[in-house]
Amino acid sequence: MNVTLSAIEGKVVSIINETTRNLTTLKTWVSIPDDSDFSIYNLPFGIFSVGENELKAGIAIGEQIVALSALATLGLLEVDASYFKQSTLNDFISLGKSITNKVRLDVQRLLVLENSPLKNHPEVFVSQSDAKMHLPVHVGDYTDFYSSIEHATNVGKMFRDPENALLPNWRHIPVGYHGRASSIVVSGTNINRPMGQVKPNSEELPSFKPSENLDFELEMGFVVGKSTELGERVSTKNAAEHIFGLVLFNDWSARDIQKWEYVPLGPFLGKSFASSMSPWIVTLEALEPFKVQGPEQKPEVLSYLQYEGEHNYDIQLEVGMSSPNSDERIISNSNFKYMYWNMMQQLAHHTVNGCNLNVGDVMASGTISGKDESSFGSLLEISWGGKKPFELSDGSTRTFIEDNDTITMRGFAEKDGIKVGFGEVSGTILPSK
Amino acid sequence: MNVTLSAIEGKVVSIINETTRNLTTLKTWVSIPDDSDFSIYNLPFGIFSVGENELKAGIAIGEQIVALSALATLGLLEVDASYFKQSTLNDFISLGKSITNKVRLDVQRLLVLENSPLKNHPEVFVSQSDAKMHLPVHVGDYTDFYSSIEHATNVGKMFRDPENALLPNWRHIPVGYHGRASSIVVSGTNINRPMGQVKPNSEELPSFKPSENLDFELEMGFVVGKSTELGERVSTKNAAEHIFGLVLFNDWSARDIQKWEYVPLGPFLGKSFASSMSPWIVTLEALEPFKVQGPEQKPEVLSYLQYEGEHNYDIQLEVGMSSPNSDERIISNSNFKYMYWNMMQQLAHHTVNGCNLNVGDVMASGTISGKDESSFGSLLEISWGGKKPFELSDGSTRTFIEDNDTITMRGFAEKDGIKVGFGEVSGTILPSK
Repeated sequence: MNVTLSAIEGKVVSIINETTRNLTTLKTWVSIPDDSDFSIYNLPFGIFSVGENELKAGIAIGEQIVALSALATLGLLEVDASYFKQSTLNDFISLGKSITNKVRLDVQRLLVLENSPLKNHPEVFVSQSDAKMHLPVHVGDYTDFYSSIEHATNVGKMFRDPENALLPNWRHIPVGYHGRASSIVVSGTNINRPMGQVKPNSEELPSFKPSENLDFELEMGFVVGKSTELGERVSTKNAAEHIFGLVLFNDWSARDIQKWEYVPLGPFLGKSFASSMSPWIVTLEALEPFKVQGPEQKPEVLSYLQYEGEHNYDIQLEVGMSSPNSDERIISNSNFKYMYWNMMQQLAHHTVNGCNLNVGDVMASGTISGKDESSFGSLLEISWGGKKPFELSDGSTRTFIEDNDTITMRGFAEKDGIKVGFGEVSGTILPSK
Repeated sequence: MNVTLSAIEGKVVSIINETTRNLTTLKTWVSIPDDSDFSIYNLPFGIFSVGENELKAGIAIGEQIVALSALATLGLLEVDASYFKQSTLNDFISLGKSITNKVRLDVQRLLVLENSPLKNHPEVFVSQSDAKMHLPVHVGDYTDFYSSIEHATNVGKMFRDPENALLPNWRHIPVGYHGRASSIVVSGTNINRPMGQVKPNSEELPSFKPSENLDFELEMGFVVGKSTELGERVSTKNAAEHIFGLVLFNDWSARDIQKWEYVPLGPFLGKSFASSMSPWIVTLEALEPFKVQGPEQKPEVLSYLQYEGEHNYDIQLEVGMSSPNSDERIISNSNFKYMYWNMMQQLAHHTVNGCNLNVGDVMASGTISGKDESSFGSLLEISWGGKKPFELSDGSTRTFIEDNDTITMRGFAEKDGIKVGFGEVSGTILPSK
């Protein structure tokens, strides 16, 4: 019975995908800036609030938010308004793709139709400038992968053996680890520089101080859209059904704390002080037109990691760095398509031992670096372990993040006049307290 | 204001602790087996259900459960019954120790009083044999430490350098890592042997198969009782306020999967297929009489890890192993007092970078081994990496866990005629599916 339902669901999803792919001439009557990330082809989901009012679910269009509970109350959606009056999207996402995709396509239709009933209901639109964005989901568990071969190679060259930079397991396993879910914050949240134990090679004993090697990691994360039971495996073929959508993700990293603590059990306090996430979840369906082939995997991976079709995504990424005295400088231009391991493989690997998933779980990619220096996704790589300082626009130099510096990551996909973007994930580092 | 409230709360807690310490002659009118873990001095909290009825909160006494919602409905507790009609204890625990401790002491009084109103209300008692126990809390984040020096030394001897078994950071940091929260299950849940990637030294390439080195880890875990904000540090002095109580914890481990995957980011699928937890949370206050001094820490730890007073607990632990053809054999006798790093240090370390805590988070100790072979807390140590098989009662031998074997952990503290026990955490390994 489950198999049949799942098959039907899969068919509905693929029909919807097909529909989305073909809508190349959509025009909305909402006024949208030409280069908006939030085009009529995107329609990402998020959680917002206005003033002291309660948190609600919305869809972004241009510089506006469509308040979904208002639409539902008007009888324009086939989902009860209560799903959109919650502080997270988890319950809505749990309804399944056949419903969440339909909501997105219904909103798309309402924003395209000449005689749209929404034209008489300006109250369903909220200006993004009037709204505060919140974490879109409650994250039960957060996993961070390490799936960029360029990043893993750079780290290996710096800290291990330049000739054998990749560890023996790297090309066989999408290496990952459990991260801290509680400290995931939404874009715009300021973060105090973490204190911690560090031990430079030159010192005999560790000391306790503010991190001096504070870094970002340019990542993308996907939000789990369908739960699994303990003992259930998800194949690469079925993995897309379990992915609701993607966000930009900054895995802040205190390199000096990490370096001293991480053997033998992995990163802990060097990461768990905060991770930042963009507020709008761009659905996997909106990203369908931007699929590309991933890098060739050699040696051949084990059968449970093999896949058919294209599962990398051509999403242009950039990192900007600014300070109170410096306008933003773009210090990295990367692309999500560089990933060696794709999301379907990550999800299949994560569940191959029977580990269960919950809606709202986040799996992040790991730092996304390209081959070129200009595409490195962390300061560790950009400054090559602190050895190559670079300049901000006021002429001051950086190797790692200083107090009051702001890091902003942006990402978008573009093809045939269609743009689907993520907005940004931004955060300012405040002094330790 | 917060400081004052917290100070008052602290005073209330210490008065309550004092009261508990002095109640050495309590006698309940409930009929209890002499050696019961759930004496009148214990009164742990759990979540139970009977038949198809809803999940509710209870306190264990002997072979009975006191249904707290029934007590509250009778007006015998100063907490609204709704707190006890939930599927987890999180909201109740969030009320704070001044309230949760009072509920426990009120129940204690009702179970001791000669003319107790409960004597006329047999309906508030449920036989444990009629009840099904559930996970007592929703675990937001789960952290696993590595705090037994004997365990860390044994592992270091086997896999690294017998002469330098401990890594350089071990005596300076309570080493820990983030674990998977979703796959924590309650005692009695059967677990399928995990499949996974393994690569024995003798093979050139990895293969995908059922784990052949399936192990348990004898641990205790504490449940966080008070949340903190991002950026907030908890001192060793205040840490006890943030600990609601303790459980037995089995951190099932697939050693062959773990061995191949764990560099450089730590254990992942070798652990995340399941961890088992005992259903009754024994409060920190019930364990107060069993505090003992911990091992001397050399070299001296950094100031944020220093502590005053006694924060180890004399809790006797045992692990039993049985199979369909073998009665249980006790294969380990250990003690929670062996821990090198205590819970106050673990909690202070966890928050020193500003990582926030939520009520219900679980922090586990890591494998609890003693000096003696008979006190080793994992099969990895007991069979010394598979080299020393041991016998079950039917004469069959084991190095690791075979299909249909059952592992049961038990623990209790005892002093001056007072016994406070944990019941058990048990699980049977079923074949891979």
